[in-house]
Amino acid sequence: MFDITLVQIFEFIGTLAFAISGIRLASAKHFDLFGAYVVGVTTAIGGGTMRDLLLGLRPFWMTDSFYLICSAFALLWVITFRKLLVRQNNTWFLFDTIGLALFTVTGIEKSITAGFPFWTAIIMGTLTGAGGGVFRDVFINEVPLIFRKEIYALACVIGGIAYYLCHLLGCNSILSGIICGIVVVLMRFLAVKYKLHLPILKGEEQ
Amino acid sequence: MFDITLVQIFEFIGTLAFAISGIRLASAKHFDLFGAYVVGVTTAIGGGTMRDLLLGLRPFWMTDSFYLICSAFALLWVITFRKLLVRQNNTWFLFDTIGLALFTVTGIEKSITAGFPFWTAIIMGTLTGAGGGVFRDVFINEVPLIFRKEIYALACVIGGIAYYLCHLLGCNSILSGIICGIVVVLMRFLAVKYKLHLPILKGEEQ
Amino acid sequence: MFDITLVQIFEFIGTLAFAISGIRLASAKHFDLFGAYVVGVTTAIGGGTMRDLLLGLRPFWMTDSFYLICSAFALLWVITFRKLLVRQNNTWFLFDTIGLALFTVTGIEKSITAGFPFWTAIIMGTLTGAGGGVFRDVFINEVPLIFRKEIYALACVIGGIAYYLCHLLGCNSILSGIICGIVVVLMRFLAVKYKLHLPILKGEEQ
Repeated sequence: MFDITLVQIFEFIGTLAFAISGIRLASAKHFDLFGAYVVGVTTAIGGGTMRDLLLGLRPFWMTDSFYLICSAFALLWVITFRKLLVRQNNTWFLFDTIGLALFTVTGIEKSITAGFPFWTAIIMGTLTGAGGGVFRDVFINEVPLIFRKEIYALACVIGGIAYYLCHLLGCNSILSGIICGIVVVLMRFLAVKYKLHLPILKGEEQ
Repeated sequence: MFDITLVQIFEFIGTLAFAISGIRLASAKHFDLFGAYVVGVTTAIGGGTMRDLLLGLRPFWMTDSFYLICSAFALLWVITFRKLLVRQNNTWFLFDTIGLALFTVTGIEKSITAGFPFWTAIIMGTLTGAGGGVFRDVFINEVPLIFRKEIYALACVIGGIAYYLCHLLGCNSILSGIICGIVVVLMRFLAVKYKLHLPILKGEEQ
Repeated sequence: MFDITLVQIFEFIGTLAFAISGIRLASAKHFDLFGAYVVGVTTAIGGGTMRDLLLGLRPFWMTDSFYLICSAFALLWVITFRKLLVRQNNTWFLFDTIGLALFTVTGIEKSITAGFPFWTAIIMGTLTGAGGGVFRDVFINEVPLIFRKEIYALACVIGGIAYYLCHLLGCNSILSGIICGIVVVLMRFLAVKYKLHLPILKGEEQ
């Protein structure tokens, strides 16, 4: 009972943070309200939608209006607290990270349940967590941020590997999921604190 | 019998107008004939394809060559009447609007038939009508027009709500569809006539 | 036995060449290692993934790690032989063409097996061969190359028509596939040797 509620709170927080990240970038590009909402929704549900299509499942949001309502709430938030958003950056970073961790775990578990091998599940977890941001950046016509900056998707991959190791050590799925989520959060915090990033691939002309 | 024929005429007109809008924008970016055709086809069938993938159905054009032939006809039209296209703008606006209305109704009805709730059907109707233009704009590497300008996708949403109200009032699907289509057309005409647009979301730095 | 091995060698060569084309373009845009790998993988498997989703099949790479390992190998290759890649251009062109031919045949055969008409199969063959490059170009935020330059996707279409003609003449699928592949390779070589390209569609303002 408490578990479910906690997961639901995390789901709300994560969806909100993802949608807000999309809406903020859309507003910087002077999208109208409809466009900003679509970008917000896509950031929040895009990764999971792609995952469900690949897994052959019905996209999760099509029979549960929670995600679209949550994104509408994000739009209202941005409109209302526009000038305070920068000051809330630490909070949104925290919420975004919670979302990233939760969505990674969800993606892994849905894939395992659907009968896919673990390496596919880790990819699906990463896609669930980081895919929405790629759609967002395609819509606002920018090179996807996660391909160039910081460790973001890699945190999902490492969290996924942690999940797999827990599984190998005989942990049940709840414990594995919790450890996976903690690893994702830790990786994100360490990456931002110490400005960790992957090497940039050098072009041929240099 | 007459109904079917009228719907088919509308389908031809709408597909043609959508494909032509894609081909014209592709030609402005100096695409070759193949590229222009692909962008035209994608504009015409992209929204419905995405809808069918989300609904778990076989994409509608894969067993009916009508849509690809129609797009080829659009390409021929643009090549032949290139210099007259601007003068035909009012006609294409009308045809595009008819397409928008028809595709919205089709999207709603397919979703209801597939057993989805009404709010999902309205989203699917909007996606069917306005989604192709988003793919088009991603291909020509522009920020999607419908996210920034005019009331376009919103006309589909309002038409969808009209469909739902008709349904609540006990109308059958034919009447609901006709009213939905009329609302979409009216919304588009009013939006263009009075230059209605949604508020632009203000950026944080302003 | 030998057939299978030859196809597998071609599959390796083609996947490698596709992934390397993605990684090289990503490196020119200063993607990090993760981003470059994702673009490489997407170039290699994007077309086939889209094909499988449209056909209603499980995406081919989700239960066979060959393609992701092969893309990792491509990343290693680019990092190691960065300065020699330009000198290897002829080899990569050859490998890319082999991949294009093989993927076209695979796409056609999978679609026929799934019960689709021949014209759909030709489109699916073209999508399998040329679709990955479109995803690649969307990710690096460029107008898709195949819409503007050279004969690339058209080679797949003509190869597909050759396949269909062989089928009409009573050839079995192995012979039809071989001829289709040879036609694709020939078309690509002729296109590059004689700098063949499709007419550019003239804009309206000219």
